[in-house]
Amino acid sequence: MPDNRFFSRKGPFTLGELAERTGVRLSDSGAASKTVSDVAPLDVAKPSDLAFLDNRKYRDAFRATKAGACFVTEELVPLAPSGTVLLIGPKPYIAYARAAQLFYPEQRPAPFIAQTARIAEGCVIEEGSVIEHHVVIGAGATVGRNCWIEANAVIGAGVVLGDNCRVGANASVSHALIGSNVRLYPGVRVGQDGFGFAIDPSGYIKIPQLGRVVIEDNVEIGANTCIDRGAGPDTVIGRGTWIDNLVQIAHNVIIGKGCILAGQVGVAGSAVLEDYVVLAGQAGVAGHLRLGRGAKVGAQGGVLKNLEGGKEYMGSPCLPIRDNMRQIALLKRLVQKDKNKTD
Amino acid sequence: MPDNRFFSRKGPFTLGELAERTGVRLSDSGAASKTVSDVAPLDVAKPSDLAFLDNRKYRDAFRATKAGACFVTEELVPLAPSGTVLLIGPKPYIAYARAAQLFYPEQRPAPFIAQTARIAEGCVIEEGSVIEHHVVIGAGATVGRNCWIEANAVIGAGVVLGDNCRVGANASVSHALIGSNVRLYPGVRVGQDGFGFAIDPSGYIKIPQLGRVVIEDNVEIGANTCIDRGAGPDTVIGRGTWIDNLVQIAHNVIIGKGCILAGQVGVAGSAVLEDYVVLAGQAGVAGHLRLGRGAKVGAQGGVLKNLEGGKEYMGSPCLPIRDNMRQIALLKRLVQKDKNKTD
Amino acid sequence: MPDNRFFSRKGPFTLGELAERTGVRLSDSGAASKTVSDVAPLDVAKPSDLAFLDNRKYRDAFRATKAGACFVTEELVPLAPSGTVLLIGPKPYIAYARAAQLFYPEQRPAPFIAQTARIAEGCVIEEGSVIEHHVVIGAGATVGRNCWIEANAVIGAGVVLGDNCRVGANASVSHALIGSNVRLYPGVRVGQDGFGFAIDPSGYIKIPQLGRVVIEDNVEIGANTCIDRGAGPDTVIGRGTWIDNLVQIAHNVIIGKGCILAGQVGVAGSAVLEDYVVLAGQAGVAGHLRLGRGAKVGAQGGVLKNLEGGKEYMGSPCLPIRDNMRQIALLKRLVQKDKNKTD
Repeated sequence: MPDNRFFSRKGPFTLGELAERTGVRLSDSGAASKTVSDVAPLDVAKPSDLAFLDNRKYRDAFRATKAGACFVTEELVPLAPSGTVLLIGPKPYIAYARAAQLFYPEQRPAPFIAQTARIAEGCVIEEGSVIEHHVVIGAGATVGRNCWIEANAVIGAGVVLGDNCRVGANASVSHALIGSNVRLYPGVRVGQDGFGFAIDPSGYIKIPQLGRVVIEDNVEIGANTCIDRGAGPDTVIGRGTWIDNLVQIAHNVIIGKGCILAGQVGVAGSAVLEDYVVLAGQAGVAGHLRLGRGAKVGAQGGVLKNLEGGKEYMGSPCLPIRDNMRQIALLKRLVQKDKNKTD
Repeated sequence: MPDNRFFSRKGPFTLGELAERTGVRLSDSGAASKTVSDVAPLDVAKPSDLAFLDNRKYRDAFRATKAGACFVTEELVPLAPSGTVLLIGPKPYIAYARAAQLFYPEQRPAPFIAQTARIAEGCVIEEGSVIEHHVVIGAGATVGRNCWIEANAVIGAGVVLGDNCRVGANASVSHALIGSNVRLYPGVRVGQDGFGFAIDPSGYIKIPQLGRVVIEDNVEIGANTCIDRGAGPDTVIGRGTWIDNLVQIAHNVIIGKGCILAGQVGVAGSAVLEDYVVLAGQAGVAGHLRLGRGAKVGAQGGVLKNLEGGKEYMGSPCLPIRDNMRQIALLKRLVQKDKNKTD
Repeated sequence: MPDNRFFSRKGPFTLGELAERTGVRLSDSGAASKTVSDVAPLDVAKPSDLAFLDNRKYRDAFRATKAGACFVTEELVPLAPSGTVLLIGPKPYIAYARAAQLFYPEQRPAPFIAQTARIAEGCVIEEGSVIEHHVVIGAGATVGRNCWIEANAVIGAGVVLGDNCRVGANASVSHALIGSNVRLYPGVRVGQDGFGFAIDPSGYIKIPQLGRVVIEDNVEIGANTCIDRGAGPDTVIGRGTWIDNLVQIAHNVIIGKGCILAGQVGVAGSAVLEDYVVLAGQAGVAGHLRLGRGAKVGAQGGVLKNLEGGKEYMGSPCLPIRDNMRQIALLKRLVQKDKNKTD
């Protein structure tokens, strides 16, 4: 059970309500009024808990579970233990995600503006927002409805935040237009100057960085990630994209909808990621490249050329995944041959 | 045109003044009193805009531009459209950079010290400086003339900042001597203890870190970058060096003049980078190595040995660039041969 | 000599006291009352300084040193210069570390709670602690004895900090239980949501992250490093582990005792590092893997499979170190052959 010092639980919920709100059907319609009071993994769930099975690999845990109810797909129903009510649908993990959000909705403080916050003239703070201690908001900024700006964050002059945004502790944002339902985790840096200069023997000469950062709706940006503003064009993060911690997004980068960038990824200036691109941890993309829709790059992959969409790549420099695996296997064989020779 | 919520423009400027201040000559001396009111790329520039052409690749955009004036080299003059006044010199991009700085100089607030800032006893804050809300400055620190310390930054006891420095929001600095015209972006960490300990079965024993960070004039340090102080000797960042976001500089590292370190580069303890070394994104340098003057390491390159200066390197472990490219090509051929065999 | 603007020195100490407190013996028992007043490297040490020799490589510096006293092993005693008193024991570097801590103990401010700090109701701040300016502490948090929370740090509701902890400037901590003698450097992010979501065509659906971060005693966590809380289970950092700057630790990761993670390392979700694992700079570990006790991975290494303990690995994907070196050597030979052919 989650630690109640940090998490507070709603519920219990009836299985009927849960089935309806997650779009699945009950194995036993007579169980609609039965309640569950928490979510838990299959192996530790109690009769009062709701679990899920999403992967055939865990079928033994499923057979032995004591969970009172469980999300599951049609084809795994035959494996169910007798004491567990089943919530049957095609995507148990998604149904579970929605149910878990019902039990543990994000806990927001009641709306207030801390006396220690410093909000410059001409700002608009819409109703329902929380502005915590020592937040600083620059002139003419707009904070939408039901936003939550955590302690010691800094919002620059003119920045626009839509509704239901959350800005983490000690984060800073400038030169940015941000949609609704966007979440910036603690320590995020958005909108600072890109790395732009002309090389001259007398010293590098800064190119004024005259673009913005535009973040569309439903984006998450992980802790201590940095997104520089554009040099002239904007840096853009598309709707529904998720970015993990310690990621670097350089100036003029355009990221499409629904992309996933894992921890410590780096994307150099003016690169374009079309919709649904996935970059695994520590992958890097060189400047001015285009990655086609749905391209996936493995961990530590290095992208030095444009990538065709819909394919997977690995290695540095990255190759289509089968070529990369052939290369690794070939090297292994060559080294083995060499070893035999020298032994 | 840059978003006027974030950028305010100076000008218009006459072409005569612009030519003089950027050190170029006009194609038509009769146009010296003509004015331009903004900078813009060739393809979107209007007759009131100033553009530049630095790369033969864009000559078609140049031929078709509607820009009122354009920086260009002597040899590309013949391609110019008739309606555009030319500003002719050997380095159009540098001239453009200087002109863009005239139109869009850095916008600084008027000097003030926020009432919520906490400045300890014995500090010297020279005239012209801005100390924003919730800044904390430790005992005996010195802030030079015309500095700008952004909101929620923390400057430790005894730190010295020269003139015209800017410290970004939520940055922290301790144990450091910093020159003039230095800019630390938001979230930068300068001066914390290096990663130094003796390994003992009873637990690692911390080695007191007794050096400083010395940053010379005209250095830029990107968002969330970390520079640890020396263990005994100092960590040094040379004059005019530019460091991008999320870079790690360990204790005792010595970086020369005019080096460029791109995003997410890591330099391990006691490494020495001579002047004008360039490290591309995510490159790493192992401890106690020396990189000769002007050595360049490609993206994700791994430096495990000393590098001779004046050469380019790629790969992990890195090789001279031609050897690395041969290796990549050779592997490709071997894999292709192997594929043919198994098909 | 360390800069006295930043460091204040204790002492002088007699060699007798130093020998006793570091567990070594004096070469000349008559010198027990002789004093030294600082620590210094062999090559710059003066007769009033204490040095150490830990590596035969520096024996020439040892022969020529002017240090008044020096930690050294038994077998290097014959090389000692006549003017230097020797402090003889099996581990000179550890003895030196302990002596250096006597001369330069961590300098803590006297206990106080700044008036600008905001401490919510129901917090416990034990005696001896320092809470600097603009710190924000959430409801019900506990700060143990003799802790030091630096300026502008944010401690979330319910967080527990043991005794003698230090939280750096602008760091943030939430959903965490932290032991004693733990140090979080400036800008550290502990306890934010892990990167957990279900993929759905309508947009990614967040999985509530219901675990905590548990940090055991004597852990150090470097500047701007991020440690996400668990998704259900906890994220755990074992006793005495040292983590460097800009490291990413994802949700549910379990790190054992005495591990060392160098700068910019990344560990993906649910990975397990057994005790004494060492990851060099920029190394990465994929999700759900197990690294055996004492496994060591070289710089930029990529771990894509479980690793047997007690061995060293290099490369991406990583191999046992000898195989990796064979592979590098083999490639070199093949490229050389290829060069000869084409020349």
